[in-house]
Amino acid sequence: MRKPLPLRKGDVIAIVAPAGPVDSRKLTRGIARLSAAGFVPEIAEGVLEREGFLAGGDAHRAEQLSWALALPEARAVMAARGGYGTTRIMPLINWRKAARRPRLVVGYSDVTAILAYVSTRLRLSAIHGPMAAADLAGKTDGAALAAFSRLAGGEVSTGEPWGAPCERLRGGAAEGILTGGCLSVLTALLGTPFEPDFRGALLFLEDVSEPSYRLDRMLTQWIQSGRLGRITGILAGKMSPVAGEAEEDLRKAFAAAGRRLSVPVWYGFPAGHGGPNYALPFGVRAKIDGRGRLFLLESPVEAR
Amino acid sequence: MRKPLPLRKGDVIAIVAPAGPVDSRKLTRGIARLSAAGFVPEIAEGVLEREGFLAGGDAHRAEQLSWALALPEARAVMAARGGYGTTRIMPLINWRKAARRPRLVVGYSDVTAILAYVSTRLRLSAIHGPMAAADLAGKTDGAALAAFSRLAGGEVSTGEPWGAPCERLRGGAAEGILTGGCLSVLTALLGTPFEPDFRGALLFLEDVSEPSYRLDRMLTQWIQSGRLGRITGILAGKMSPVAGEAEEDLRKAFAAAGRRLSVPVWYGFPAGHGGPNYALPFGVRAKIDGRGRLFLLESPVEAR
Repeated sequence: MRKPLPLRKGDVIAIVAPAGPVDSRKLTRGIARLSAAGFVPEIAEGVLEREGFLAGGDAHRAEQLSWALALPEARAVMAARGGYGTTRIMPLINWRKAARRPRLVVGYSDVTAILAYVSTRLRLSAIHGPMAAADLAGKTDGAALAAFSRLAGGEVSTGEPWGAPCERLRGGAAEGILTGGCLSVLTALLGTPFEPDFRGALLFLEDVSEPSYRLDRMLTQWIQSGRLGRITGILAGKMSPVAGEAEEDLRKAFAAAGRRLSVPVWYGFPAGHGGPNYALPFGVRAKIDGRGRLFLLESPVEAR
Repeated sequence: MRKPLPLRKGDVIAIVAPAGPVDSRKLTRGIARLSAAGFVPEIAEGVLEREGFLAGGDAHRAEQLSWALALPEARAVMAARGGYGTTRIMPLINWRKAARRPRLVVGYSDVTAILAYVSTRLRLSAIHGPMAAADLAGKTDGAALAAFSRLAGGEVSTGEPWGAPCERLRGGAAEGILTGGCLSVLTALLGTPFEPDFRGALLFLEDVSEPSYRLDRMLTQWIQSGRLGRITGILAGKMSPVAGEAEEDLRKAFAAAGRRLSVPVWYGFPAGHGGPNYALPFGVRAKIDGRGRLFLLESPVEAR
């Protein structure tokens, strides 16, 4: 596993728009929060472009990401927001080049495509965490932002329970390489050259606006593909049910997948769309104990 | 290509529920229409069972389908409705056994999983067409029902334009093996043992309740997978846009896919969720001419 250098106060974070069009007021708000937290946001040119449901054409969005991944002073690359469009630009990035100079990629939702790919195929750690014009402009609270700073700075000890305890749906403790992300985005990588490799994974999964039958359909697809045969457990994020359903319906879908795979399932980690979005390191070892507490056994960044 | 015997007036159609729970009043209505059209519907035991979003457990739904596929007097097997659940039972069916005694499978939407698999992997023709407790209880008009009867009966000539002319989105005429179905269901087969083989396909695609970014995401996944590299064209069904979008947004997604694949794209065939649901034969050669007229070059059933 290759790890980027730690992100400390005073370091530059490059902000890019690989997916949906960015709201400028939200971006301003998120940038102010990052600045207040001591970071130096540097915004990609044309970050506010808009072309239908995309933040500009594929080449334009890919260029922003390539710029950020090569920017000498950038210690981290944070997406402004998700939406849709990241899978479209995956083939346009020189990933081998990016892996030679590891940078901490940060985001969630549609940006899952990058995080899952780099953390399992390039064996490069990444952070499932806040985005400038998304949760940083809204639901991310002070504690979650502070947690991100500590995690990206390499300041979290292995004995510290992370986030908030989860609810047991099936089985007990589990340990593996933490990775995963937004289930519908992960599923959109199946069969492509950017499909993640979940062997040995403690699989974090979450989603938004998906009725339980769709969660079940996606989990069924992954199970039938044989590609979850060696995961060590499922850690589902806190999620909001769609209209007409209860959170219990979501729990059922994850529990059923755990039964079919004979692995432990825990629900409710406050990351992704449904909670304050506590940052999670992808590509490093983590453990969930028999009481549902998550421990990060490795830092996602090098010791400075 | 193996073809079932033709379905004629007086023949038995076995009705099964492989997916979502069936509404008994709708089923009654559809059965009455099939009977009035001269067929003899024979309903699987427990067709009205219900377990959450499924028409009973996986074993129960698989058993209905297995029963129907083996029923000596059944000339066709029609799904009562779609919804979700067909992909879950695909591994529970003895498909090799089913292929030895070909039966005309009829349905659309979630039942796409069966149609695309049998028409491309088992090389067994099938009919993308009406379902008893779905469109036959509603939008299917007399002309569409009569078209189904003629198609299943082997009475359509190769010189007869089928359905209604389509709108050109890109390129011109195309000829290939007609197959495909509901895009989100097809996409849920990617990477599984039931993934269809689209080499040489004139690909019919349609969907419902999917915003254009999701259509684009699914088409991007298929394109990145390399599995559409040898299709001969795209024939998109008539679709209804979601709230906040126009039909033009849907057209754009299909046109963009055609550009990326360098194949002709036609839009608006009245089959699937968006039109009166004209039956389409899957697994047989068809041609769309330069004026958007579809010609069925082969019958889906044997000559009697």
